[in-house]
Amino acid sequence: MSLHGKNQRGQNLRELSAEAIFSLALDGELRALGRLITFIERDSDEAEVISELAHARAGNAHVIGITGAPGSGKSTLTGQLVALLNQKHPRAAVLAVDPSSPLTGGAILGDRVRMEDVASPETFIRSMATRGHQGGLALAVPGVVRVLDAMGYNPIIIETVGVGQVEVDIAGTADTTVVVATPGMGDAVQANKAGLLELADLFVVNKADRPGANDVRRDLDHMLDLSHTTGQDQRTGMRPEIVMTAALTGQGAADMWAAIERHRDAITANGQIDERRASRDLEEVRNRVMAVIERRVDDLLSEHGTTGALKAVRDREMAPSVAAREITNTRFG
Amino acid sequence: MSLHGKNQRGQNLRELSAEAIFSLALDGELRALGRLITFIERDSDEAEVISELAHARAGNAHVIGITGAPGSGKSTLTGQLVALLNQKHPRAAVLAVDPSSPLTGGAILGDRVRMEDVASPETFIRSMATRGHQGGLALAVPGVVRVLDAMGYNPIIIETVGVGQVEVDIAGTADTTVVVATPGMGDAVQANKAGLLELADLFVVNKADRPGANDVRRDLDHMLDLSHTTGQDQRTGMRPEIVMTAALTGQGAADMWAAIERHRDAITANGQIDERRASRDLEEVRNRVMAVIERRVDDLLSEHGTTGALKAVRDREMAPSVAAREITNTRFG
Repeated sequence: MSLHGKNQRGQNLRELSAEAIFSLALDGELRALGRLITFIERDSDEAEVISELAHARAGNAHVIGITGAPGSGKSTLTGQLVALLNQKHPRAAVLAVDPSSPLTGGAILGDRVRMEDVASPETFIRSMATRGHQGGLALAVPGVVRVLDAMGYNPIIIETVGVGQVEVDIAGTADTTVVVATPGMGDAVQANKAGLLELADLFVVNKADRPGANDVRRDLDHMLDLSHTTGQDQRTGMRPEIVMTAALTGQGAADMWAAIERHRDAITANGQIDERRASRDLEEVRNRVMAVIERRVDDLLSEHGTTGALKAVRDREMAPSVAAREITNTRFG
Repeated sequence: MSLHGKNQRGQNLRELSAEAIFSLALDGELRALGRLITFIERDSDEAEVISELAHARAGNAHVIGITGAPGSGKSTLTGQLVALLNQKHPRAAVLAVDPSSPLTGGAILGDRVRMEDVASPETFIRSMATRGHQGGLALAVPGVVRVLDAMGYNPIIIETVGVGQVEVDIAGTADTTVVVATPGMGDAVQANKAGLLELADLFVVNKADRPGANDVRRDLDHMLDLSHTTGQDQRTGMRPEIVMTAALTGQGAADMWAAIERHRDAITANGQIDERRASRDLEEVRNRVMAVIERRVDDLLSEHGTTGALKAVRDREMAPSVAAREITNTRFG
């Protein structure tokens, strides 16, 4: 990075087209890559061209989602995975998706610093936070993954806090979704409530050196037995494995990676990986269509907030369900 | 309840119109009320008429949302509130909203039995669970609250697990939203991540007899200091109170109720309560409009899954964002 906003070739990125920046990024220029990602995150005008270029080249990376409650040790585990991949997969990428406020920024930064210490120099690490609304994050993450995929990063690890539907959805769009549980606080039950049970391709019981770790394993096993799919993932026909780890000592990280690879190999062999990618793209189309329509509905409702059907609702002359039908039929019929 | 599906007057509810059932419920017949709620939950054809009748009579009940992590003692606290209200507010209603599977049914049933032991005989207690998708629950809860409100129940307490956006949204649509935290596991941080901080009109630190309760209080205080609104609720200009309780011994339940009443009185005095109710109705209109459009988008995407823009995405000839724009413009323009 230069002092005058120019790259190592003396080019000012601000003066280049999106196509030119994309080419520079393909040549390995990290500042250009950073700029592409910023365009995607902001959904700028350039984002569409970048997505077209990236989509044409993407589809090779193994995308891994890692999710779990705050304090489950996800970030430390991710760091250990990255350390483990250092030799065999030096061009890994990590996207740390954090839903929340500046308050937690410190913790994430701490983890990043540690992660960068153990990762290969070619590892790409970036954290993404919601600016304003979470819907934006759900739209931006697949776009950023696509760019990283096009640039040859593999695997791409998306780490999200398993709190809130958006983060759960993000983790669920991976080829392989890892759910991290820990002893205490009825995590297995919590995982079930948050819909994580259906989502997991692999469970990791972290802090396995603590009392109660075997109980968590047993609870998860039990829930898999009871679940509607009788413990078989409906998408793959595979029963999710349960791996025990202790992130602070590194115990089990190799087992975790081996289980991730087994899952990837299985879904590659049975063709599920292509279906997952196609449904990921379809989901992205759907989310974007819905986001546009949602804006139109909001505009419509705020324009007509004190007139017509909405006024009738306020005056208790019309039920909200009747008003909704009227609005839907006349404006989106 | 009779053995032959008839009520105490010998009428078979199945043969009566929605209007007639509504009248019976107004006369205090609980089986009729149960049937109205079932219509609303299922969004049957009768639901619209029932909502019209209920909406015209609703708007009097104080709606209280109580949310917190699993194990925070919400249900026990709710039970104690109901016991406390026994004399002064004998016609309270409790809606226990549980997002999840049959697996947790046992626990809820247990809580209900206990709650019914302490409540006045006129208290209405019902649990609602998602059947299938959570969106349905978000649509059904305001409808059920409206019916209970029209029947004169007051206050109406909605108890939800603070896991997942839907439950958080449901709790947030109350006149007074209570967020329950407990010592341990960084609940304050978790509350912040789940967006509960912005939502709370009142914090309850439950299990206040345990070590660390004062730390939770201090953390919450600190977060309120730091929050964008500098600890003032943007909607009311009030800083949320923090009440300490120990649900198992009953300590603090009276304080909690007093704080809830203070909040209600304050938003009644400054007119906020009417704005909250109007925006709750508007939100319901919006959710219903979006639900219908969402179904239409899904139908459209599944019809055209292998043709046109979606085929081009699959073949990597078109980015999902471009396909989304094309679909939005041609079909929802």
